[in-house]
Amino acid sequence: MKKHNFSAGPCILPQEVFQKASEAILDFNGMGLSLLEISHRSKEFVAVMDEARAIVKRLMKLGDDYEVLFLQGGASLQFAMVPFNLMKTDGKAAYLDTGTWAAGAIKEAKKLGTVDIAGSSKDQNYSFIPKGYTVGAEYNYFHCTSNNTIYGTQMKEFPKTDTLMVCDMSSDIFSRVLDFSQFDLIYAGAQKNMGPAGATLVVVKKDILGKTGRDIPSYLNYQLHIDKESMYNTPPVFAVYTSLLTLQYLEQHGGIEAAEVRNEAKAKLLYDEIDRNPLFEGYSVKEDRSLMNVSFKLTDESKKEAFDTAWKAAGISGLNGHRSLGGYRASLYNALPIESVQVLVDVMKSIS
Amino acid sequence: MKKHNFSAGPCILPQEVFQKASEAILDFNGMGLSLLEISHRSKEFVAVMDEARAIVKRLMKLGDDYEVLFLQGGASLQFAMVPFNLMKTDGKAAYLDTGTWAAGAIKEAKKLGTVDIAGSSKDQNYSFIPKGYTVGAEYNYFHCTSNNTIYGTQMKEFPKTDTLMVCDMSSDIFSRVLDFSQFDLIYAGAQKNMGPAGATLVVVKKDILGKTGRDIPSYLNYQLHIDKESMYNTPPVFAVYTSLLTLQYLEQHGGIEAAEVRNEAKAKLLYDEIDRNPLFEGYSVKEDRSLMNVSFKLTDESKKEAFDTAWKAAGISGLNGHRSLGGYRASLYNALPIESVQVLVDVMKSIS
Repeated sequence: MKKHNFSAGPCILPQEVFQKASEAILDFNGMGLSLLEISHRSKEFVAVMDEARAIVKRLMKLGDDYEVLFLQGGASLQFAMVPFNLMKTDGKAAYLDTGTWAAGAIKEAKKLGTVDIAGSSKDQNYSFIPKGYTVGAEYNYFHCTSNNTIYGTQMKEFPKTDTLMVCDMSSDIFSRVLDFSQFDLIYAGAQKNMGPAGATLVVVKKDILGKTGRDIPSYLNYQLHIDKESMYNTPPVFAVYTSLLTLQYLEQHGGIEAAEVRNEAKAKLLYDEIDRNPLFEGYSVKEDRSLMNVSFKLTDESKKEAFDTAWKAAGISGLNGHRSLGGYRASLYNALPIESVQVLVDVMKSIS
Repeated sequence: MKKHNFSAGPCILPQEVFQKASEAILDFNGMGLSLLEISHRSKEFVAVMDEARAIVKRLMKLGDDYEVLFLQGGASLQFAMVPFNLMKTDGKAAYLDTGTWAAGAIKEAKKLGTVDIAGSSKDQNYSFIPKGYTVGAEYNYFHCTSNNTIYGTQMKEFPKTDTLMVCDMSSDIFSRVLDFSQFDLIYAGAQKNMGPAGATLVVVKKDILGKTGRDIPSYLNYQLHIDKESMYNTPPVFAVYTSLLTLQYLEQHGGIEAAEVRNEAKAKLLYDEIDRNPLFEGYSVKEDRSLMNVSFKLTDESKKEAFDTAWKAAGISGLNGHRSLGGYRASLYNALPIESVQVLVDVMKSIS
């Protein structure tokens, strides 16, 4: 039976990407060698890294004032790298507190300087995105999380601030059209819309670096990675290659613009059913609903067994909510076909 | 034509590992899903991580006083993590300076404390392993590099010290029988004998942690990774799985004991030809020769074109020396068959 994979990440990627990645492990580019056994300094892999970095800039419509890096350690390591690179030794930063991952970023920044919370929805268990705050030039930077996987909230607009704009886009990167040039630093773990676990994307405006007066641990220093063209040390070869395949697929299928259209249609299909069907209710406030992660629950817990049995029988996987919130979460990442959403909606309609 | 891959890393792995890793990308464990699209918190992947951590302890014959972690960032991030976790705020450490990677580790440690060099072969361009030093209890730890990929040197014995023993085993881990319990912390990038690029092995004695008084960035804190059973954040799923496959292959083929016998035979075959053939000479002093990386050069540069043409025609790849040393380097990692070494030796014999 065909599987409908709503996993929150690592998550579904295009089937064509799985096929090509699988083939590369047996024979990469007709070299007679596995992708896994070639030097990262070989011309064949350097070409992979160069193209992966270039395609990100093309998709984001960014110029040469930005650099693209593929690092390791996930967004969690970025939580530390951001303040190491941008927080002055006596500095302070403003953070928007929109969920578990934002709170994780705040915790790391506090180890290196003062953190002020520009806005928080913590007392409403992160069911909405705070708005109406201002961030002045006294801050070294402003940090926000564009999409909150657990709660299913998403920033629809980004504030104008008087300082550097840093955004964790781990869970909605490449899913919707944005003016990416409004950000000075963007980072994202690969394992949602970009590729498999094991690579971390960093897009950084070059002229913001080197101004903190800190002696940064080398691996945590963006400038060093830029100087070495994202090859400061052995990169995560397979994860970078599979990210390249995913980005190429996106570019060949209409880029971010077309992905946004598909993602809006998928989200509308599911939210419409949640709003129509009295047995279900969404978690977040409507105006901040995420197009990527739909968190919802049953209004009648006595239907749980019937619903769980029905969606599993329909070939659906990865629908359980995050352990901290319970309920259900349907992740509608780029590679999830609308047919899978229709299967879920049909199951929801069948419960009564 | 069959390839003979002498790459210094990423490097050859068992063909059976490539086959299984390739299959898992299309369908993992008969789940109907790719390994790349399942949650790292699924019972299927948790079982992979648990078994990978357990098999390392079995192969190293270590007890429950040690913990095994699969992290990201390579040995380069370990260069910073070691002092963050072990160097007291007013502390000092002793380092053995045996090459480029040792020097990289020293550079990071100096950012956090005082570093004394226990011994160095830098003035002889790292062609030997320093010996005869002592390390007293006034040091928070002693750090050494067991094998130096570029120069082809290897520590045959490890010193008795009065402090913690830390060893970077990136390039010879699982290649020879050692009393691993003489070390308090061992780390290694996966991409030589353990698996593909993208995972970093850490084996740490639990009772050495938590004594520095530092506020450690979370991702750099070993204790946090231990508390989360190596799932503090999304692990590099594919690299961990492929490492598990490689470790299973090793265990099924006689473990480290049998690998050592094979590695000694391969190294003897090649070093014997280097010593016999007046057209070649080894780089390092004989007593410190590495079983993993054989760095050598031609004694007569006029033979270079003939030799290069001959080994390429024989299907050999990855034989060029590191850019900092020139000449040739044959890496004889666990998965390289002795037949490949014989092909190289036959080519060397054919040059005159």
